[in-house]
Amino acid sequence: MDLVVGATARSGEYAVTREEVLEFARKYDPQPFHLSDTAAEAHPFFGRLAASGWHTCAIVMRLTVDSWATDDIRPLGGAGIDEIRWLKPVYPGDTIHADYEVTSVADAKPRPGMRLVRFKTTTLNQDGVAVMTQFSNVIFQAE
Amino acid sequence: MDLVVGATARSGEYAVTREEVLEFARKYDPQPFHLSDTAAEAHPFFGRLAASGWHTCAIVMRLTVDSWATDDIRPLGGAGIDEIRWLKPVYPGDTIHADYEVTSVADAKPRPGMRLVRFKTTTLNQDGVAVMTQFSNVIFQAE
Repeated sequence: MDLVVGATARSGEYAVTREEVLEFARKYDPQPFHLSDTAAEAHPFFGRLAASGWHTCAIVMRLTVDSWATDDIRPLGGAGIDEIRWLKPVYPGDTIHADYEVTSVADAKPRPGMRLVRFKTTTLNQDGVAVMTQFSNVIFQAE
Repeated sequence: MDLVVGATARSGEYAVTREEVLEFARKYDPQPFHLSDTAAEAHPFFGRLAASGWHTCAIVMRLTVDSWATDDIRPLGGAGIDEIRWLKPVYPGDTIHADYEVTSVADAKPRPGMRLVRFKTTTLNQDGVAVMTQFSNVIFQAE
């Protein structure tokens, strides 16, 4: 992927397992609908056990780092996120991937010699349904 | 914490260990400055091994779920995040906590009978330095 406005790319895929959903939730997001089938079934919009939204973010970071490695892209770090929307639940058994689009490239004030690249990332499941969107700002060394 | 505009609360504390920083990074954010002392020391702004920003988000979710449990607050889930800023690195050995402020309460259109509460969350380290800010939108059953 070239770091120019309008460039697009697609990540690899990540199979979300029940074991990993429960492990992440126990450690970082122990709300009942992320831990218990019964609680999730009684929930007004999850319907069944669903992954923590932060787990989805972490998985997408992993897909992104792997994509960057493939393309020999080496960012200096993330400056921040402008928006995350958890559009649909991610369920154990889903396989997700991310579609990327570069939406802007600018000087990274106040860091001389660095540039800030803004990505729109859409995460989709195996049915092509968008489950999450985010806009992230990533710092790169200017070439 | 009351879910009214202007209400504030403080979480408990979370000790960030080197082992956990490496474990999270290996799994979800295997960039060199999250995995290697040498790479982090050569980095223009980390200086030493630093936690993934997504790890900080996950830890703050845990602190938040624990705070909600203490106050018997039971949200239905997160609708999304409006902004995250990683202001300063979080290092192994740091102890972090979160300060919360309710910034708005509204009907959760298009979900009848639910309301959307917006929180500003500031995460601070043991020196009182803000390391992350975020604005999150959380769905609650209307009372």
